[in-house]
Amino acid sequence: MVRQPTSQDRFSFGLWTVGWPGADPFGAATRPVLDPWEYAGRLAELGAWGITFHDNDVFPFDADEATRDQRVRRLRDAADAAGLVIEMVTTNTFTHPVFKDGGLTSNDRSVRRFALRKVLRAVEIAAQLGASTFVMWGGREGGEYDGSKDVYAAMERYREGIDTVAGYIRSQGYDLRIALEPKPNEPRGDIFLPTVGHALALIAELEHGDIVGLNPETGHEQMANLNYTHALGQALWSGKLFHLDLNGQRGLKYDQDLVFGHGDLLSAFFTVDLIENGFPGYPDGPRYTGPRHFDYKPSRTEHLAGVWESARACMATYLLLAEKAERFRADPRVREAMAYAGVLELAEPTLAPGETAADLLADQDGFDPDKAAERDFGFVRLQQLAVEHLLG
Amino acid sequence: MVRQPTSQDRFSFGLWTVGWPGADPFGAATRPVLDPWEYAGRLAELGAWGITFHDNDVFPFDADEATRDQRVRRLRDAADAAGLVIEMVTTNTFTHPVFKDGGLTSNDRSVRRFALRKVLRAVEIAAQLGASTFVMWGGREGGEYDGSKDVYAAMERYREGIDTVAGYIRSQGYDLRIALEPKPNEPRGDIFLPTVGHALALIAELEHGDIVGLNPETGHEQMANLNYTHALGQALWSGKLFHLDLNGQRGLKYDQDLVFGHGDLLSAFFTVDLIENGFPGYPDGPRYTGPRHFDYKPSRTEHLAGVWESARACMATYLLLAEKAERFRADPRVREAMAYAGVLELAEPTLAPGETAADLLADQDGFDPDKAAERDFGFVRLQQLAVEHLLG
Amino acid sequence: MVRQPTSQDRFSFGLWTVGWPGADPFGAATRPVLDPWEYAGRLAELGAWGITFHDNDVFPFDADEATRDQRVRRLRDAADAAGLVIEMVTTNTFTHPVFKDGGLTSNDRSVRRFALRKVLRAVEIAAQLGASTFVMWGGREGGEYDGSKDVYAAMERYREGIDTVAGYIRSQGYDLRIALEPKPNEPRGDIFLPTVGHALALIAELEHGDIVGLNPETGHEQMANLNYTHALGQALWSGKLFHLDLNGQRGLKYDQDLVFGHGDLLSAFFTVDLIENGFPGYPDGPRYTGPRHFDYKPSRTEHLAGVWESARACMATYLLLAEKAERFRADPRVREAMAYAGVLELAEPTLAPGETAADLLADQDGFDPDKAAERDFGFVRLQQLAVEHLLG
Amino acid sequence: MVRQPTSQDRFSFGLWTVGWPGADPFGAATRPVLDPWEYAGRLAELGAWGITFHDNDVFPFDADEATRDQRVRRLRDAADAAGLVIEMVTTNTFTHPVFKDGGLTSNDRSVRRFALRKVLRAVEIAAQLGASTFVMWGGREGGEYDGSKDVYAAMERYREGIDTVAGYIRSQGYDLRIALEPKPNEPRGDIFLPTVGHALALIAELEHGDIVGLNPETGHEQMANLNYTHALGQALWSGKLFHLDLNGQRGLKYDQDLVFGHGDLLSAFFTVDLIENGFPGYPDGPRYTGPRHFDYKPSRTEHLAGVWESARACMATYLLLAEKAERFRADPRVREAMAYAGVLELAEPTLAPGETAADLLADQDGFDPDKAAERDFGFVRLQQLAVEHLLG
Repeated sequence: MVRQPTSQDRFSFGLWTVGWPGADPFGAATRPVLDPWEYAGRLAELGAWGITFHDNDVFPFDADEATRDQRVRRLRDAADAAGLVIEMVTTNTFTHPVFKDGGLTSNDRSVRRFALRKVLRAVEIAAQLGASTFVMWGGREGGEYDGSKDVYAAMERYREGIDTVAGYIRSQGYDLRIALEPKPNEPRGDIFLPTVGHALALIAELEHGDIVGLNPETGHEQMANLNYTHALGQALWSGKLFHLDLNGQRGLKYDQDLVFGHGDLLSAFFTVDLIENGFPGYPDGPRYTGPRHFDYKPSRTEHLAGVWESARACMATYLLLAEKAERFRADPRVREAMAYAGVLELAEPTLAPGETAADLLADQDGFDPDKAAERDFGFVRLQQLAVEHLLG
Repeated sequence: MVRQPTSQDRFSFGLWTVGWPGADPFGAATRPVLDPWEYAGRLAELGAWGITFHDNDVFPFDADEATRDQRVRRLRDAADAAGLVIEMVTTNTFTHPVFKDGGLTSNDRSVRRFALRKVLRAVEIAAQLGASTFVMWGGREGGEYDGSKDVYAAMERYREGIDTVAGYIRSQGYDLRIALEPKPNEPRGDIFLPTVGHALALIAELEHGDIVGLNPETGHEQMANLNYTHALGQALWSGKLFHLDLNGQRGLKYDQDLVFGHGDLLSAFFTVDLIENGFPGYPDGPRYTGPRHFDYKPSRTEHLAGVWESARACMATYLLLAEKAERFRADPRVREAMAYAGVLELAEPTLAPGETAADLLADQDGFDPDKAAERDFGFVRLQQLAVEHLLG
Repeated sequence: MVRQPTSQDRFSFGLWTVGWPGADPFGAATRPVLDPWEYAGRLAELGAWGITFHDNDVFPFDADEATRDQRVRRLRDAADAAGLVIEMVTTNTFTHPVFKDGGLTSNDRSVRRFALRKVLRAVEIAAQLGASTFVMWGGREGGEYDGSKDVYAAMERYREGIDTVAGYIRSQGYDLRIALEPKPNEPRGDIFLPTVGHALALIAELEHGDIVGLNPETGHEQMANLNYTHALGQALWSGKLFHLDLNGQRGLKYDQDLVFGHGDLLSAFFTVDLIENGFPGYPDGPRYTGPRHFDYKPSRTEHLAGVWESARACMATYLLLAEKAERFRADPRVREAMAYAGVLELAEPTLAPGETAADLLADQDGFDPDKAAERDFGFVRLQQLAVEHLLG
Repeated sequence: MVRQPTSQDRFSFGLWTVGWPGADPFGAATRPVLDPWEYAGRLAELGAWGITFHDNDVFPFDADEATRDQRVRRLRDAADAAGLVIEMVTTNTFTHPVFKDGGLTSNDRSVRRFALRKVLRAVEIAAQLGASTFVMWGGREGGEYDGSKDVYAAMERYREGIDTVAGYIRSQGYDLRIALEPKPNEPRGDIFLPTVGHALALIAELEHGDIVGLNPETGHEQMANLNYTHALGQALWSGKLFHLDLNGQRGLKYDQDLVFGHGDLLSAFFTVDLIENGFPGYPDGPRYTGPRHFDYKPSRTEHLAGVWESARACMATYLLLAEKAERFRADPRVREAMAYAGVLELAEPTLAPGETAADLLADQDGFDPDKAAERDFGFVRLQQLAVEHLLG
């Protein structure tokens, strides 16, 4: 049996996850929509620590200010009552048809201005609720046809938009960081900032890049045929892993948003191992310290019972994998296999202290490549130890 | 009929392209291997302007210094005789078994040192031959198993390696820039720096990043399920499009290295349009000014006749597409459709000069999202104009 | 300029194509929904010859019999008035939540019975309207989790369902054939009958398989990483290419349903070449004789103008490609290159007339594999001829 | 700890698996090649029951008859000494350059005749060694360019070739069945018979189809973006699951041939569950009764120690998964969840005994779709039970 999660585990859920009623491109909703505050108590009961939301998960797109404030307040009260933290807020710049060509990079300048205002207003809600992270997912920023977009201009506008938001956060003195969420496609044919790498590259060009980082999602990197754990690794190396979205995906297809662990289970194991135990070669090195946030969808075949079961499953699998990962790292056979494989040796600089390229060129170290090539790295054995721990 | 290319077109070919004898994971070579200088004359006859090579395309891995120098000299002489520029040189850190776990990021430090020396020596050859670009493709940097690699350490070693090479170039006063070549997989399960984005993100962390840019390859970005033209666009925006590798790929499978245009032809059209005509919204804006370099493989079903036919085809398709792209941009219907679609409008800043986020929030511009949402962007018509120009 | 299509071209459109209002998993509709008969006149004006529909494209899921009849009659009248043929009818067993686990293979028997009744009723409408093809797309037949489905039972139920429908058609004496439409995923994680091959394999097990064939869709085969033209070829070889769905897809992602030719243009060329010109080695051989049917979606960025423009584009691209394909086949250089490549030689049986395996084994034909291996097939040249014809 | 496998487990290995020296498209071999009989003893020690091979795994392509016989005999002796069954034999029609355009479907008729003879000779070896299965993998049957192949002719030649081989087996009275092995691509851009479905469809057209079935490989189906367990299910339903190739693949890329379970672990669990426990709804139903055969490659980073470790790992993971699957099926919570999900209900015919389509149409069963749509299928809970058993 899996233990019940507690607030120490810092699990959080988007309201849009358990709240997804199940409409998809070929089918109507299969579940009723509840009011956002109705989810709070139940998530807390299941052991969640926090919740997150898009502005329009809580109030309608065309809500007036009074309605907006009233509904946000009501959600905050419900969260407080349930002991839940509102740790992240984000804006919906993708549902309303006005965003059909994007928000910050729409070809239509009046739409860009409207989108930017909407984002800024959501920042104010985030700040007012004490959220620490403001996520920006530009799901509609992109195109289906290369001719329809000037990519240079799109990058200029994306930079302008993000820097404007970051500058506003700073000017208001909000204790809030922005986390960009990459995705390669869906709902657009090709989305700008398709992967963690592209988003890091944009951040490097920002004026206020120090408060801008990433919110990588498992399935999104996998939809670009990439390794999610590697993505987290490079984001941590760049000091930019501010938040994350855990879920499951089964290969190159539509965005499935399955329960965490119901996609690539071995990859999920190494993801949890990295989050919980850090890089093997850097015991005091960089670590992810944010919430364990799930961005998934209860399958459309499930009714309300399945909604809660799936939320429970996300946390249960995470806890099981964390336990396995802890034992994996502690197992002397694993330590021996890691040493055999040279995993820790990679943390050692290639050059000796003070050594220059010229020194290296001059070094006659008698290295014999044919001999060195016979090294057995033992990677398969190490992987099999992971599999046997998982199945153990 | 397609016109014969000239040196003004600046087409260049890797020696390993026409020189590929056709061995693949399931089959032996189908063509003889010629000496590298034998390719030079023929490529020049076909209209090529330049050639490029890996160190071990010219001399064996275990060649002594005399052999090395003699063979490089002979190639240079052949190139000179044929009027060909040697515009780029690169190192092979992937064929010999010693590199089975990578070169600069092998878990084995002695291998890393050996690899770094090999790269530095190839830099010297590049400088001596007057090449302007030194490509680094880390095809073996990566892994099959998440547990076998400390990703933080791998990024540290990759940075150390590239900065060491870049620092050496600078210390020697060579007029040479480094271009990193991303690839998502093959021959490793997951390669580090899998896409243009990830490589840009690494460059942003380098000490000598100003002389380090990119060499994006058509098929490599497509193997990450991404849009190659978008990749070129973001690389140009970051000021890092130093070189490129044009070829063809048909979807998510092994690295096909088809003739340019024999993969996704519509994408190839927009790639050529960007290279030749730049971003629509920035007539005097950033442009790619390097060689039109092909990195492809003549299909294994072809014998030597097919080798030359395929090299000719790469250039012919490029020229045809360039001609189409010029007419596309000049067509008044296209200009009208681009205006209708707002393509040029995206170059206009979202904020007015001097406008702040607070100003924007205060602006009651009477924007009606429901009304704005009715805009017909006409992207399909613009795309169809491209298709009709192509088929015209 | 592309010529205007005529009814001789036999272009047909699903009402759900031009009628798609643009709602997607992340966004609301961007276009109004018209009544089905409003599309008929406009499609006819554009040059279409036929229309097709799902039952619930014409009348609501819960329509009573009178409403149903009245709306179907009104559509028929509109089609007649416009001179349009209603060539195909299909059933929607995927939108209503009752079908969330499928229709014919839902785990819930009462749902299966309901679905089968719905299909049978749509068959009656098809027969009454004189359609020649009844398409069955089992988009919800499948699962996300291997444990949730007994695949043997699913195949049993699929067979039972299709045979029941086919038997009913026969028992009623309707002049109607069933065409199964394969798809690998979306809206289910894994759909049963994921490709043309799997559907052919099912048909081979049917009692009434002679009136059951296929309706292969361009993008669906491509979502399984497969070659659409090869799929059409195998379907024709099996005598089962009853109908087709032409559209465009850009790689392994959500179902894009782009305009025909806006996906893989080279593949579209060879698709049209096969449809129009048949197999090169069989001038009197099997040919596709059904409608040129488009199943695409006007991009969500387009308003009504873009809807009609995109319908026009589907036909225009087809006509352009057909013209190119005709010239390609007629070009003496192409004929020479096909002969050189042995394309026609493949139609010659491997064994001589009357020759047995034992004869073959005994035949000392002096074949020299090393010598034969030197053959240059010239496939690249042939492909380049196609590219140069395309770019003309 | 995992128990040692025994011959009762019926694990078998291709000699080309442990014998793969590690050359790949970008790198030379990293391990020595042993003589085929050297593998036998070691595999037996590890607990294997059988071995399999291609003709040219045992003797060179150009071996004379004496060498051929001598080497085959020596292998048989080694197998006998080690107590290993030679359960399957296959032909290599892909390595030698003569097969560069395929064997049975090469455009060159003389090559087709040569290939067919080579296959027939390998059949004789198979029969002589008492193998029960003869696998045919047509890895080179296909193309990169649609214009280079007449698909109808290719299907004709494929049918002719297979029927000739099957007819020969029958005429000789050999107790041998053919198993076709589908693969979507690599080494050709598009291989004919890309999936289990396409191969089943071909078999349905054979004269001697009764002795022709399938050898589905985990990674091959996954390279077509498909569900391997579903493929096994449909093959069993068609009565054609004659043999299988278990391994691991991580998504849409080159053919990785990882250790079984080192790819998609959840999918591997359900694969083993199907093989060991059959279809849930058919306790006495069709079952796979052949060997548990591995077709994988020890990673190139491993030396000989890693070769044996990886072979051990394939069996260990299988045994662990089989144990988990047994407990999964026996768990009352799983039984309850399967019933709740309707998994067994799918085995019940949709029509009542004797019921006709007309009866069904006339049946006023009072079914309320809106009410039925509220069913909670509990698929997520069932999947989570599988995950918790796996991690248990």
